[in-house]
Amino acid sequence: MADTVRLRPGDTIGILGGGQLGRMLALAAASLGLKTHIFCPEPDSPAFDVTADFTIAAYDDIGALNAFAAAVSVVTYEFENVPGPTAAHLAARVPVRPGPTALEVSQDRLSEKDFLSGAGIELATYARIDSDDDLKAALERFGGRGVLKTRRFGYDGKGQVMLRQASDQRGARRAIGDAPAVLEQLITFEKEVSVIVARGVSGQTEVYDVTENRHEHHILKTSTVPASVSASTAATAKTIAGKIAESLDYVGVMGVEMFVVADGDGERLLVNEIAPRVHNSGHWTEDACLTSQFEQHMRAVAGWPLGSAERHSDVIMENLIGNEAESWEEILREPGARLHLYGKRASRPGRKMGHVNRIRPKSA
Amino acid sequence: MADTVRLRPGDTIGILGGGQLGRMLALAAASLGLKTHIFCPEPDSPAFDVTADFTIAAYDDIGALNAFAAAVSVVTYEFENVPGPTAAHLAARVPVRPGPTALEVSQDRLSEKDFLSGAGIELATYARIDSDDDLKAALERFGGRGVLKTRRFGYDGKGQVMLRQASDQRGARRAIGDAPAVLEQLITFEKEVSVIVARGVSGQTEVYDVTENRHEHHILKTSTVPASVSASTAATAKTIAGKIAESLDYVGVMGVEMFVVADGDGERLLVNEIAPRVHNSGHWTEDACLTSQFEQHMRAVAGWPLGSAERHSDVIMENLIGNEAESWEEILREPGARLHLYGKRASRPGRKMGHVNRIRPKSA
Repeated sequence: MADTVRLRPGDTIGILGGGQLGRMLALAAASLGLKTHIFCPEPDSPAFDVTADFTIAAYDDIGALNAFAAAVSVVTYEFENVPGPTAAHLAARVPVRPGPTALEVSQDRLSEKDFLSGAGIELATYARIDSDDDLKAALERFGGRGVLKTRRFGYDGKGQVMLRQASDQRGARRAIGDAPAVLEQLITFEKEVSVIVARGVSGQTEVYDVTENRHEHHILKTSTVPASVSASTAATAKTIAGKIAESLDYVGVMGVEMFVVADGDGERLLVNEIAPRVHNSGHWTEDACLTSQFEQHMRAVAGWPLGSAERHSDVIMENLIGNEAESWEEILREPGARLHLYGKRASRPGRKMGHVNRIRPKSA
Repeated sequence: MADTVRLRPGDTIGILGGGQLGRMLALAAASLGLKTHIFCPEPDSPAFDVTADFTIAAYDDIGALNAFAAAVSVVTYEFENVPGPTAAHLAARVPVRPGPTALEVSQDRLSEKDFLSGAGIELATYARIDSDDDLKAALERFGGRGVLKTRRFGYDGKGQVMLRQASDQRGARRAIGDAPAVLEQLITFEKEVSVIVARGVSGQTEVYDVTENRHEHHILKTSTVPASVSASTAATAKTIAGKIAESLDYVGVMGVEMFVVADGDGERLLVNEIAPRVHNSGHWTEDACLTSQFEQHMRAVAGWPLGSAERHSDVIMENLIGNEAESWEEILREPGARLHLYGKRASRPGRKMGHVNRIRPKSA
């Protein structure tokens, strides 16, 4: 069944997940006169404060899923680890956007890499690891070094182990619970960048400017736009993101993370991973673009025309992690700083509490 | 008691009124990590869809008001006709911002004019009208022409009658129900402009650029920024708005409507009226400024530092009235157009359903 459902103002978008991404999606939907219904197991979800309706239930609660599907015109999600059976159950009742392929591919690091390779996208060399023997063989091919990552449920550096010369191979597999994994060749990269791309039901594509990302303790700390890459690298990065969205027949906003590696005098791009959702490295779009990634995703999911991804300002986005959000008042006093807080009750180390977009006039 | 209450992220702002202004205030509060609680008698209020909590009750429901006051850290309102006893009852329990003076003054056209005159602000000549004799005497002084307006509850042209030579004076007073009124001298103005001013608890003031307004059938149709007035008139308009906010010891955002009248070779400004709340003629700030009037009001009411009122783009705001919102899809396709819909269920002639901000690069 071709999914061509188009919403009208006043219709309801269902969102799986009630964290800060769901919250910012709900706020964007409201500005467009769309309603949201958030489905999330956690009773204290930040998105519940800004939505017309919400359901607190487990993702395998069939009764709750049926009622949710009946109450909404389309379903989307704020996280890629939506259980497959949940997505399938909903998709039989109501359009799910982005569609099942994007979800399946991005939930499994191996499927994702196989899919991207098949679509002609350049990646770091990788190998499937199901056993100690697989790991031994792959490490030999990769010169004894690599990053071992679980195929599923990894985020913010969780579920991965770095392997260097003379590493404890057995210990590494144990550290990830002997889970099915991939080994990625260790690459020396110059920079980490990402591209946010949006694609509508009609195939209309809007690509945001390339973002340069800096991580601390495996968590995104800052995103800077424009990225300090060459014009041709920037153009290539945007083309790659568009190509991936096209290959997936994607509907919605997607984040594509890439490494910039030195290549002779020039730069080369290797895709690291994709996220079939609005992305932390796209939070700057809210204050530096005509259309934010959140509004863009709601427009795409509603079957509406996309807005322009044009950027009107330079910007550095900084995540406020743990107790860093305590400096909210200083940030409010800072000229050009745009504070965003997520309404989370308790701050914990490593928890994303908000972010700040520091805006500057556009450089060129 | 000096009102110096300062909120923290996660605290709750109570808002009286659940229309589009309350809705946009709630959305702005959420971005800052503040919660809102909307109090409104209408069960179908658009703001209920985007707020953590709401109360459906009459403004004289003492039990509901007490519970509301206990649930919030500060109270504000989206409309100036909050009943005096409601405001007084709440103010005895929780800070109400803007304060009682602003509300009293702006609820009564005569008090407002007396207050503004007393503060040295230029207005069209006016007279208090309590009887047919008052009207007769005033008309004689004003050359037989004027606008008769009820002192209370006038908006969008309601509660006013134009009187010209040989008018039916008795009929005019009957048309406004013989209500206490003022007669304003008819003036010939070149343009209608307004200024949005924000003032914080500490006295910090931020003034937005002057807006040129065009009305249709007494309802605001467009607001254009920059206004086509001289630089000195623009500066004067901003000074006047700041002076009024100061005189009222105001906390929050206020709209000040003014007439530009020809004065020899130059321009002169006469204040028409003030609105102690976010204002329709300030909706352009959401897409053309770093800080919108809605965020600014929430910051002021929370006792927080104000943001910059700096404008980064030129803009024309157009109200979408009645069935005009049906063109939402064409607007979404328009480059540079920012659509805002209010989530109102039924469209009626004259009902404000949304607005669009059409953005252009800043001219100078």
